[in-house]
Amino acid sequence: MNPEYKKNRIMEDKNINKELVEELELRCRKISRELERSGIDAALISSNANIYYSSGRMFRGYAYITSTGDVRYLVIRPGGLSDPKTIYIRKPEQILSVLKESGVAMPANIGLELDTLPYTTAIRLKKAFDGISTDNISNLLNKVREIKTPYEIARMKEDGDHQVAVYRHISRLYKEDMTDIEFQIEIERILRLEGCLGFTRMSGNLMEINMGSVLAGNNADAPGPYDFSMGGSGVDLSLPVGADGSVIREGTTVMVDMNGNFNGYQTDMTRVWKLGEISSLAEHAHEVSRLILRELEKKCVPGFPISEAAQIAYDIVKRESLDDYFMGHEQKAGFIGHGVGIVLNETPVIMLKNHDPFMEHQTIALEPKFVIPGVGAVGVENTYVVTAGGLENITVYDENIQDLR
Amino acid sequence: MNPEYKKNRIMEDKNINKELVEELELRCRKISRELERSGIDAALISSNANIYYSSGRMFRGYAYITSTGDVRYLVIRPGGLSDPKTIYIRKPEQILSVLKESGVAMPANIGLELDTLPYTTAIRLKKAFDGISTDNISNLLNKVREIKTPYEIARMKEDGDHQVAVYRHISRLYKEDMTDIEFQIEIERILRLEGCLGFTRMSGNLMEINMGSVLAGNNADAPGPYDFSMGGSGVDLSLPVGADGSVIREGTTVMVDMNGNFNGYQTDMTRVWKLGEISSLAEHAHEVSRLILRELEKKCVPGFPISEAAQIAYDIVKRESLDDYFMGHEQKAGFIGHGVGIVLNETPVIMLKNHDPFMEHQTIALEPKFVIPGVGAVGVENTYVVTAGGLENITVYDENIQDLR
Repeated sequence: MNPEYKKNRIMEDKNINKELVEELELRCRKISRELERSGIDAALISSNANIYYSSGRMFRGYAYITSTGDVRYLVIRPGGLSDPKTIYIRKPEQILSVLKESGVAMPANIGLELDTLPYTTAIRLKKAFDGISTDNISNLLNKVREIKTPYEIARMKEDGDHQVAVYRHISRLYKEDMTDIEFQIEIERILRLEGCLGFTRMSGNLMEINMGSVLAGNNADAPGPYDFSMGGSGVDLSLPVGADGSVIREGTTVMVDMNGNFNGYQTDMTRVWKLGEISSLAEHAHEVSRLILRELEKKCVPGFPISEAAQIAYDIVKRESLDDYFMGHEQKAGFIGHGVGIVLNETPVIMLKNHDPFMEHQTIALEPKFVIPGVGAVGVENTYVVTAGGLENITVYDENIQDLR
Repeated sequence: MNPEYKKNRIMEDKNINKELVEELELRCRKISRELERSGIDAALISSNANIYYSSGRMFRGYAYITSTGDVRYLVIRPGGLSDPKTIYIRKPEQILSVLKESGVAMPANIGLELDTLPYTTAIRLKKAFDGISTDNISNLLNKVREIKTPYEIARMKEDGDHQVAVYRHISRLYKEDMTDIEFQIEIERILRLEGCLGFTRMSGNLMEINMGSVLAGNNADAPGPYDFSMGGSGVDLSLPVGADGSVIREGTTVMVDMNGNFNGYQTDMTRVWKLGEISSLAEHAHEVSRLILRELEKKCVPGFPISEAAQIAYDIVKRESLDDYFMGHEQKAGFIGHGVGIVLNETPVIMLKNHDPFMEHQTIALEPKFVIPGVGAVGVENTYVVTAGGLENITVYDENIQDLR
């Protein structure tokens, strides 16, 4: 960990430099192209993830992007943005008139993020666009974001490097008789010192977590309300996920799946530690997780069906007679991986029901995990870039179960 | 800080004990009563905050509460809930039939949380309730949650005690040449060790923060996109709030406004530290903040108009010629306080435009703050219970600007 590195990165981020300006133009062109293909005249972007994607910063307001390539940032706050595409507004009812004033052609139809806009906000926008039909572009924007640009992949590799740098230190943080949450707190601190933003941007208004999940022993088998791959009962009923305050016990595992957001993008990475010796069943399941990753790293090339990738995993699990433990034991997750980027749980979802093909420069996290009763969770999660040569791992780090002492 | 205390608390929280069962019955009765008053037959509760409020835990699904006092938890996950009011469902289309089967009378109209439900989810629910009219109960539920029960106030006092325990340690965390974010990381660690859940449940799908805000020097004057009282540019463009990575400088202040969520409820509390001597203008503004709090603590009794409370603050600020700095300098917040509870930014909003009266057992945070260019932010924030005798402070701790060295 190099504190100087962090400081420099922070300073650079303050400025939207030439490289980022070109990158933002590219992203907006990608959106325009998809709008044109779908016969939608313009997108009114409202979610934080897509505001950040299309403008490179966060503001309260809307990004307006037409199928012909016009881009305007309709900003409520903060004041003082210098981008010439910025138009200040106070409320959504002004959108059409300010666009007209700035010479933008009026759309016949407009796309809204109807999967994330609250109902009453969407109704207000529809009313403000009286006479203009609206479409749901949530899925269109998800699909655009799935395929990363070289700039985005570079940011995610930066995340991977930081996350690996932190994971290297984890073994040293353990002290005898530590609880899982005490262990997590020390991991959080070194993540933050490495530059982690300490915030997980997620999709779905029901997802909640703090800086990640540390699952020790049988707590890994506690079912949760959220759509994470693993559960854990948490230390309080109000946030039932992850560490539950138990002392880490001899003969059990500790699964670490902590926040990898260092720059607005993120990697998702899981490794396992153990205290003393664990059962051969748990050791075996961990090796099977690695075996699944090795198989999928070869098979997942552009065009390969996502459902078949999931099937490969389930076939290996069945052959190894580990069905009872795969992707949870008391409660099972319905996926073995997911897209990752600005949002932790992006599309595509890697599951049997998803018959889409992989596409070049998707970034996905694969997490074939097992919960072994009496021992805990095992398995590895890496973040990958889909390339013509297979999956490129951007979270390269020792995958063995490591000793806490 | 007593680690044993934390462990005991965690263990107790695992069980929904008799006291909490009675508390939950009381909360659901409050909801039923408001439904009856509003002529709405039933509420279908869907947001995390209100699921937690009405059931005492988090699950994916819905809480169904009728105006006549029937309560059912319609749970998708997790499995294994033992509450006899639990009915498992897989999808919202099953709701009406499972209710019918369990002997619940069919509603003529049903209330949905339309201010938080995503548009497409709301439309799906409306379709599932074909023939039953729907109302928006977001505001009704906010109003119910505003008035805390004795149980809730006790939880919030517990939060206040924890938050004060942490703030007592803050001065000792400073080291020479520290950046604001390094200082924040050490505060985060002791918050977590004290039992802080490290998660801020907020209202509004555009609000984002990590564990809180530490604002040093001129960074306090950086305008932000979020509806927080203060800004700060953050360490990355993707999360522009709070600490920006600057070294804490002689002659400037550091405002600490960190997470107070220890049990699903939370307190909101701000104190200020300084390095060396600061300008008399800044010292004066800080004293005026305290003066405003003392005035409002006396005046804010049940029945007193919220707008008049805000006016008292603005009148004092004007008399002291501090208008330019109040509630921000480059960008000003439109409120001087807000409700707080399960959600950090609950109703009521304390602002000139809010003509509602205060009500007994509302819990509010008051934060008359100033941004002094060249120095930083000053002012105090406390969390209070509205009582017949005035505001009861539940975050009692030294309000003076404290020295970092």
